[in-house]
Amino acid sequence: RVDHDRLWSSLMELGQIGGTEKGGVCRIALTDLDRQGRDLFVRWAKDAGCTIKVDQLGNVFARREGRDPAKPPVMTGSHLDTQPTGGKFDGAYGVMAGLEVLRVLHDSNYVTEAPIEVAVWTNEEGCRFAPAMVASGVFGGAFTLEHALSIKDRDGVTFGEALKQIGYDGKEPVGGRPIGAFFEAHIEQGPILEREKKTIGVVTGAQGQRWYEINWTGMESHAGTTPMEGRRDALVGAAELIVAARTIGNRPNGRSTVGVIDSLPQARNTIPGRVFMTVDFRHPDDAELTKMDAEMRAAAADIARRHGLEVKIEQIWYFPPSPFAKELVDAVRRGAEQAGYPHMDIVSGAGHDACYVNRVAPTAMVFVPCKDGVSHNEIEDASKGDVGAGAQILLQAMVERANA
Amino acid sequence: RVDHDRLWSSLMELGQIGGTEKGGVCRIALTDLDRQGRDLFVRWAKDAGCTIKVDQLGNVFARREGRDPAKPPVMTGSHLDTQPTGGKFDGAYGVMAGLEVLRVLHDSNYVTEAPIEVAVWTNEEGCRFAPAMVASGVFGGAFTLEHALSIKDRDGVTFGEALKQIGYDGKEPVGGRPIGAFFEAHIEQGPILEREKKTIGVVTGAQGQRWYEINWTGMESHAGTTPMEGRRDALVGAAELIVAARTIGNRPNGRSTVGVIDSLPQARNTIPGRVFMTVDFRHPDDAELTKMDAEMRAAAADIARRHGLEVKIEQIWYFPPSPFAKELVDAVRRGAEQAGYPHMDIVSGAGHDACYVNRVAPTAMVFVPCKDGVSHNEIEDASKGDVGAGAQILLQAMVERANA
Ligand SMILES: NC(=O)NCCC(=O)O
Ligand SMILES: NC(=O)NCCC(=O)O
Repeated sequence: RVDHDRLWSSLMELGQIGGTEKGGVCRIALTDLDRQGRDLFVRWAKDAGCTIKVDQLGNVFARREGRDPAKPPVMTGSHLDTQPTGGKFDGAYGVMAGLEVLRVLHDSNYVTEAPIEVAVWTNEEGCRFAPAMVASGVFGGAFTLEHALSIKDRDGVTFGEALKQIGYDGKEPVGGRPIGAFFEAHIEQGPILEREKKTIGVVTGAQGQRWYEINWTGMESHAGTTPMEGRRDALVGAAELIVAARTIGNRPNGRSTVGVIDSLPQARNTIPGRVFMTVDFRHPDDAELTKMDAEMRAAAADIARRHGLEVKIEQIWYFPPSPFAKELVDAVRRGAEQAGYPHMDIVSGAGHDACYVNRVAPTAMVFVPCKDGVSHNEIEDASKGDVGAGAQILLQAMVERANA
Repeated sequence: RVDHDRLWSSLMELGQIGGTEKGGVCRIALTDLDRQGRDLFVRWAKDAGCTIKVDQLGNVFARREGRDPAKPPVMTGSHLDTQPTGGKFDGAYGVMAGLEVLRVLHDSNYVTEAPIEVAVWTNEEGCRFAPAMVASGVFGGAFTLEHALSIKDRDGVTFGEALKQIGYDGKEPVGGRPIGAFFEAHIEQGPILEREKKTIGVVTGAQGQRWYEINWTGMESHAGTTPMEGRRDALVGAAELIVAARTIGNRPNGRSTVGVIDSLPQARNTIPGRVFMTVDFRHPDDAELTKMDAEMRAAAADIARRHGLEVKIEQIWYFPPSPFAKELVDAVRRGAEQAGYPHMDIVSGAGHDACYVNRVAPTAMVFVPCKDGVSHNEIEDASKGDVGAGAQILLQAMVERANA
């Protein structure tokens, strides 16, 4: 019942906002391009008969009224911000799939019992304001509103300032109202569904994450005159930890990434005295994640001692492994079965807004395959048939739930 | 005969221009602070009776006429630019010591046979425009004028543009005229003189250097969903090479430093796809430097293969070990002996403008100790007595040579 062509063309039109030469999208959270993406969604949602509300973190809710407005809404949604090297599908797909649900209902004048809402969550990627999913996190009670608004990007701009700048500093409180159910459609961002030739991933939960900010302090000194023995080279320390973190990640189902590094004073012939770096550890098993934490701290302490460095490790985010609501996961699986799509259960390697909404409402996710399992890359791709299939499952599950 | 207090107070006054909170100096080449430092020198040199000429690379020459203006001048000088984390002495000392020579001659109305000149060489540090000593390099015939003017900083600004910006794009040709002798006074920037309790280092030459720019290309991908096995993480490759380069430097008299690293896209949860880094290798023995080059290339190729990365290594600078002119080195040693200063022969760990001038004129250098051997650091320090002693040796050697 969903219109594959309409969904696809909306995705492609949205992908023009921040579109890159290589066919990707760079639409960083709370920039003017993010505003343009939001404006387009708002316009389309109004055309589909919705009313719009914006909360104090800029989360946007497009609402299609139900026969009983007092019933808690059945909600879907995702995010419109991207990575610096992002693609057209990560996040945007979940929002456009929700819009397609609204359009199908609008075109057929179908009114559900409970209201239907489509959410756009602010700053899901976490690459500008760390950690990820901070606005759905406040919605789900994981962080306070004040904390989220005060997070600074690398230039010192706060989330709150940037939000005001783009005019999406809404009045609604963040969360605190009953939600009947939440569904999120997303590309898998990994290689499993494609390899297993499945159209639908029935997401049972997301693996755990720990994010760190690490500061190394050594001593600037002359590259030509300072003997190797006495050096306190902060970049050598950081490099050894990058290698160690990689090794720590090399365990079954482990993931480890150093995504950001800043070295000072950035002079070819001065030994670096200060380095900032991040670490992103993931594992589906919380006990393993705890071991990874301990192993990294031990490695860093050893490196610091050997090189005469000071090291400060701050864990800025702990995201425990998050299983979704069984009855909603079952509903997604049943939907895929009934529609005849090849499907499998899958654990998400990425965090998603759904994981935080899951703390205040029953939640589930629908994955579709992406080309070569690649995401956070401009070449990210998916097929029209697969994204259409995911939206169809979403539509069925939401209507079923809204009429239950 | 030199005035220790006057020399010291000029050094301290100059150190205010770009002075940092920690007592260091950040006066990057061809910035407005560099201009202010030059303006101050020019004023002081004029006050000491000199005429000023500026060449096409902004090298400044303050000239005190000799009894025979046709005689090739005896020259000294150094540089006024600093590292981002620079001190008050590196470079500035050699210029102020030259100024002190001019002032002593001026005050006593002493006229040498040959003219005396004090030079300020542009962009010695090489941290904004790589490589180091590029303007004295053109003077010495190591690079072309066009090459030097076209070098870009990390923001894409050329040397020529920056030079015009500060108004020091002079008319004089760069070099091509006879120089009778060149002397440069400098802090050692290393720990040897202090350890050996010597006031004067008789510099026999400078060790060799090779500077590299290395670009790694991998593939951006999602930190949470991309399995460790298939990753093409450019930052892991760079980190392994930083560790390998460090090991390569760990040989007798070897030096190895990675001073600059830039990783993209700088997102915590995206695997880095592109990394730029520099390597600075040094050794007094050219054969060892060649071995270090080969070892690094082998290490990089191995790393690239293991991680599915592309690596491009460009050697952007080769500076061979540079012995100074025996007769001038002997003159410095004799001067130290006669003045009764504890002294020793020493090889410079750093490159200096003198090394390039050495290619077109007999050249030598005078080192004085610096505190704890620390340079390229804001805490760089030296004693009034030592810097005065070095200037005294400079004065004697220059006058002796100018009257020879
Ligand atoms: N879906 C997605 O890429 N979310 C960003 C947060 C994460 O890195 O897991
Ligand atoms: N003297 C000095 O620090 N020169 C900079 C060039 C080098 O790193 O050797």
